[in-house]
Amino acid sequence: MPYRLIKQEGAARRGEFVTVHGTVQTPAFQNVATAAAIKGGLSALDLKEIRAQVMLCNTYHLHLRPGDQIVADMGGLHKFTRWDGPILTDSGGFQVFSLAKLRQITEEGVTFNSHLDGHRIFMGPEQSMQIQANLGSTIAMAFDECVENPATYEYAKNSCARTARWLLRCKAEMARLKHEEKAVNPDQLLFGINQGCTFKDLRVEHMKQIAEYDLDGYAIGGLAVGEPAEVMYDIISAVEPYAPKDKIRYLMGVGTPGNIIEGVYRGVDLFDCVMPSRNARHGHLFTWNGIINIKNLKYERDESPIDPHCDCPVCRNFSRAYIRHLQKADEMLGMRLAVMHNLYFYNHLMERIREALDNGTFQQFHDTYVHRLDTRI
Amino acid sequence: MPYRLIKQEGAARRGEFVTVHGTVQTPAFQNVATAAAIKGGLSALDLKEIRAQVMLCNTYHLHLRPGDQIVADMGGLHKFTRWDGPILTDSGGFQVFSLAKLRQITEEGVTFNSHLDGHRIFMGPEQSMQIQANLGSTIAMAFDECVENPATYEYAKNSCARTARWLLRCKAEMARLKHEEKAVNPDQLLFGINQGCTFKDLRVEHMKQIAEYDLDGYAIGGLAVGEPAEVMYDIISAVEPYAPKDKIRYLMGVGTPGNIIEGVYRGVDLFDCVMPSRNARHGHLFTWNGIINIKNLKYERDESPIDPHCDCPVCRNFSRAYIRHLQKADEMLGMRLAVMHNLYFYNHLMERIREALDNGTFQQFHDTYVHRLDTRI
Repeated sequence: MPYRLIKQEGAARRGEFVTVHGTVQTPAFQNVATAAAIKGGLSALDLKEIRAQVMLCNTYHLHLRPGDQIVADMGGLHKFTRWDGPILTDSGGFQVFSLAKLRQITEEGVTFNSHLDGHRIFMGPEQSMQIQANLGSTIAMAFDECVENPATYEYAKNSCARTARWLLRCKAEMARLKHEEKAVNPDQLLFGINQGCTFKDLRVEHMKQIAEYDLDGYAIGGLAVGEPAEVMYDIISAVEPYAPKDKIRYLMGVGTPGNIIEGVYRGVDLFDCVMPSRNARHGHLFTWNGIINIKNLKYERDESPIDPHCDCPVCRNFSRAYIRHLQKADEMLGMRLAVMHNLYFYNHLMERIREALDNGTFQQFHDTYVHRLDTRI
Repeated sequence: MPYRLIKQEGAARRGEFVTVHGTVQTPAFQNVATAAAIKGGLSALDLKEIRAQVMLCNTYHLHLRPGDQIVADMGGLHKFTRWDGPILTDSGGFQVFSLAKLRQITEEGVTFNSHLDGHRIFMGPEQSMQIQANLGSTIAMAFDECVENPATYEYAKNSCARTARWLLRCKAEMARLKHEEKAVNPDQLLFGINQGCTFKDLRVEHMKQIAEYDLDGYAIGGLAVGEPAEVMYDIISAVEPYAPKDKIRYLMGVGTPGNIIEGVYRGVDLFDCVMPSRNARHGHLFTWNGIINIKNLKYERDESPIDPHCDCPVCRNFSRAYIRHLQKADEMLGMRLAVMHNLYFYNHLMERIREALDNGTFQQFHDTYVHRLDTRI
């Protein structure tokens, strides 16, 4: 069993997840490296410095460029990027449904046009597994339909059923690929994804069904796509009792520091989000007192670090005034330092959450920080 | 005397240059950080890793943004950027003549429009010194007119005379500023700049004249602006005998590895150039066998480092295939790794030149590498 539950406080879980690429202390944040590179010019070696545990890469992007066969020929994502810790790859599904053009869905899979050059691509459960096997990630995600929000109950129900059928095909294909002689990672893990839009009964039904399939982990997908945060929290609370207790749980694409604290509060173990790097680009930097906008005039002569309570490589060395200048002057270094700080903040947030769980003080941590960290100051 | 000549081989000089911010082993390359940041997201801390000795910042850019008064309020460029080694600032002259719009030159100085927002600015010798004093650089450059190439003999002659008059005003203003109580760097050094277009007699005459002014160093400016390399080499050879032997010599804005080797060959001690970072952006990477284009298809599956003979942080870790992918995908990391390698190559080239001078084998080094390093392979 890769997941071990160490301690619980309410629904919140302190655990660890053992993989061939190292053990992940949970709850954990996965650092997004879409095209096998962190935004802001961070390398895999930089990830170590900002206390990252897991890197996440996007199957769709890597399939298009450089091509997953090239990554396989280079020995897989670990050798390619030089990140030796766990890597999770998504299934490509989310991008097929959000980025690709002119898509047609059938029982077999999805045909769509590349957003780069328009060429026609087919991806179904088997193709997604084959690509992820080529990438050699630690954890592969099942290929699912990410239904648009809002959707009709009817559409969501049919889509859920298809996603469940696709999941079984993913499992079978993954089992086959892992035993191939050329397998990049013969120990590749597979997570299933819960769907069902914002319909609680569909969500619960679907989770009950896929819980039976004995996967290495369970994700909740299709949330944080525009619905109010309260709706998301309600759905997490609704499906949580039906997710296997002895398996890791991953809330996909979430979210703000407050969202993450609420997710942990409801029993989630893993997160990922582009927010730390996307916000960094706009000068929005996370601190333990809330979010600052470094481009603000008041930081023009501010010699203090982004966050006086932060000991990241950026806060140990550079002033707000310098980072403000770099961002105003569109210097790449401004983006790099901002991303580095924000990602460190997220990884460190998870450390503090784990500490609080270890000490039995997570409720207090939750109450202190859940709103504060999301507030613009 | 800040400069000490250690050894000579022909005209080539092995020396060292002592400053309050550390001793520079010469010949040396100055790493360009235009707006107080190296291109490609490199910080001052990264400069240490790529064996940089000197950082160079641009007065014109920093005067416009963030403003030199802000840098002074932050304690000067060293505190602002966290680079604790020597920093040279140019005079702003080159940018006034290449970037700014609608300029008018008088005996007093130059009035021009900011290239950022068009606002009207006046800069003369005193203003340039005041700005550089605010920046607190280790070495300030005299304010000169960078005459366009080609220019008439008459124009070049008059301009030279004015640049010499400006130089005396720079020296007087610098002496005054260094003794002010609020001086950021009371030990700031001043280099004069030789001009005279491609007219050898004007160049020699001007060098003879400014050699009398007892400055901390002498630069050759206004070269590498479109004239053939042979013309540049001839001018260096012509003025070299008239540059004070006991002062450091700096060839501004030069150049390719081959240009630098030829410059050292003719008695130059200091160089700077944007070529390492500019070439990196286009995928042109320096190696000890010549210049490769990393975007070339032949590197798609190439597991070897950029240069197997290089031990820079990039070559120690990443493959050509990975860097090619990053550059093709426009990932910031692709730019960062390429700049890091190219700058390391330049700093390491200077190390090898110094080694050759130490060993009395510089002629051989020159003959082996002067063409090879500039060849596209």
